[in-house]
Amino acid sequence: MKFKNERVLLAHGSGGKETWSIVEELIVSKVPFKLRFLRDGVGLNVLDDGAAIKIGDEYLVFSVDSYTVNPIFFPGGNIGTLAASGTINDLLMMGAKPIAAMDSIIVEEGFPMDKLNTIIESMVNLLINEGIALIGGDFKVMPKGQVDKIVIGMTGIGIAKKLIVDSNLKIGDKIIVTGPIGDHGTIILASQLGYLDKIGDLTSDSKPLTKVMLPLIEKYGDLIHAARDPTRGGLSAVLSEWAKLTNTTILIERSSIPVRPQVEGFLDALGIDPLHVACEGIAVLGVAPEVADEIVEFLKKNGEVDACIIGEVIKPKTSILKGKVVVRTEIGGLTILEPQALPIPRIC
Amino acid sequence: MKFKNERVLLAHGSGGKETWSIVEELIVSKVPFKLRFLRDGVGLNVLDDGAAIKIGDEYLVFSVDSYTVNPIFFPGGNIGTLAASGTINDLLMMGAKPIAAMDSIIVEEGFPMDKLNTIIESMVNLLINEGIALIGGDFKVMPKGQVDKIVIGMTGIGIAKKLIVDSNLKIGDKIIVTGPIGDHGTIILASQLGYLDKIGDLTSDSKPLTKVMLPLIEKYGDLIHAARDPTRGGLSAVLSEWAKLTNTTILIERSSIPVRPQVEGFLDALGIDPLHVACEGIAVLGVAPEVADEIVEFLKKNGEVDACIIGEVIKPKTSILKGKVVVRTEIGGLTILEPQALPIPRIC
Repeated sequence: MKFKNERVLLAHGSGGKETWSIVEELIVSKVPFKLRFLRDGVGLNVLDDGAAIKIGDEYLVFSVDSYTVNPIFFPGGNIGTLAASGTINDLLMMGAKPIAAMDSIIVEEGFPMDKLNTIIESMVNLLINEGIALIGGDFKVMPKGQVDKIVIGMTGIGIAKKLIVDSNLKIGDKIIVTGPIGDHGTIILASQLGYLDKIGDLTSDSKPLTKVMLPLIEKYGDLIHAARDPTRGGLSAVLSEWAKLTNTTILIERSSIPVRPQVEGFLDALGIDPLHVACEGIAVLGVAPEVADEIVEFLKKNGEVDACIIGEVIKPKTSILKGKVVVRTEIGGLTILEPQALPIPRIC
Repeated sequence: MKFKNERVLLAHGSGGKETWSIVEELIVSKVPFKLRFLRDGVGLNVLDDGAAIKIGDEYLVFSVDSYTVNPIFFPGGNIGTLAASGTINDLLMMGAKPIAAMDSIIVEEGFPMDKLNTIIESMVNLLINEGIALIGGDFKVMPKGQVDKIVIGMTGIGIAKKLIVDSNLKIGDKIIVTGPIGDHGTIILASQLGYLDKIGDLTSDSKPLTKVMLPLIEKYGDLIHAARDPTRGGLSAVLSEWAKLTNTTILIERSSIPVRPQVEGFLDALGIDPLHVACEGIAVLGVAPEVADEIVEFLKKNGEVDACIIGEVIKPKTSILKGKVVVRTEIGGLTILEPQALPIPRIC
């Protein structure tokens, strides 16, 4: 019998290749191809940040996520602000302007009402500040011990004239990150391990990217070929998916990747490469080479002062390098980067 | 300090007035009126089954729910079929044809993979059989002991030419139920209490209402003034909300309400009125009186053989009866029905 004696592992939720494979096997493979998307839109046919339906000459874009982060309050945010930011960013990465959200809250019986109020207040305020309507939701309570504190589901709705679909990434494109990587994952990891005092003034990077992404999309439109926020699985997961999706090689300069010293130091002590660690407030972009420098300047002027080009998409030199990410190390050597999502639970 | 020492109770998740009041206080009140809906649609401004956005001359309709039912397998279904049916029904009750869904699954580490496969398979098959596309989703794993087995969030997307907005319920309208009430809640309650052997061959009524609702909407359109599936809180919660929403009195004939003998008997032994018990496969309709009998015949011909008129909307005779549901008992007396959601956890 299929799956006999198999059990769900933490790794299946890591956002890395184990997640893709279980989602493919358990869900996607059961859906006939013609029911994986709708009306010239995108859906399970492309595993992107969200789904889209074409209506008239616009796309309505949707994102769905469950937020299970632990701890629920962390330096730089809480589960409510994370849910709002994550939802907004997923829509932006599809090229959409976020217009509405719906929340679905599950709380443990006995959870303190003032904490719940704080979480919801900060979540709602973040949405309001972005001009996003909250048009519906659900509220459930589970008995004590049956869910740990609170989980928040959020559905986002956005609107796009044109979608950013990552399969458009092209050979020659430059890869840009809008800021330093790994902050969010490091904060959560340090919290879970009880080492928050070891990481100085680091906070989660969790934030909505609207202010920088919307003008960027407006100005450069078709020249942005791919965009993704590197959450679970970090930068390595995004780049590996892109390379595989397009059958290209993505060549990354290790020395160009911005990482804060606290993040580098803390992760190094644990033997973890920041490339695998979740971010919640940066974007990875694949852009046409002729505008790459200009886009970096644009990002810097719009507040993302650490934005930089970290690599490019190249033609695979051998068949082994097809669909792979290659990292040029600080001393000039080349290594293949395998996506390696860390089975750290409840990172987002 | 507001909420000091207050804690979340099971009753807050019952779907009754405690749920409405906590949702109003914690969420709705924090959202400025103009951000409670979008583009001539509906949202938190009307607390209905879903939300809607107007696009061109159509409405895109959305529903969001978390399914936390316990047990996850029950006579007549499982958490996956419940999620799919519940989502479909919420869209239908807004007058929409369901077209797409997105799932958001949270599983406990160590959950048996074959059971997960069975749940997802039955959920996906139900959607496929209805021609509904599955266009996106999320998959998370929480460590052992941090969530009980599995919860499923589901977002539904539907399309409507015209919305059924329950505030359109009018004096003179007849109230129809499409089938016997309380089956689902009774099954879950009996399971949780270990009394499944006491209820004979009863199964949950959980099912999508598409086959009967879509032709009904097509044929009677504007003459269906209100529609709701009476889940948490049961029939009493729906009717109480409608009466309050429209400042009318809803007069119900107790003897007309269809209840299966097993449901009546089991609930009676526990002192529970079936009017408060959740259903997952019936609809409550408020329809123009001139077509009420015809609609009942239509429902019967389309498979809902227990459909019947159970009451009507009347002008409140005194100010005390404004916004109230009045039940005429079997022996002819009149009693006011207060919504009384049972704090039974994880009913849906």
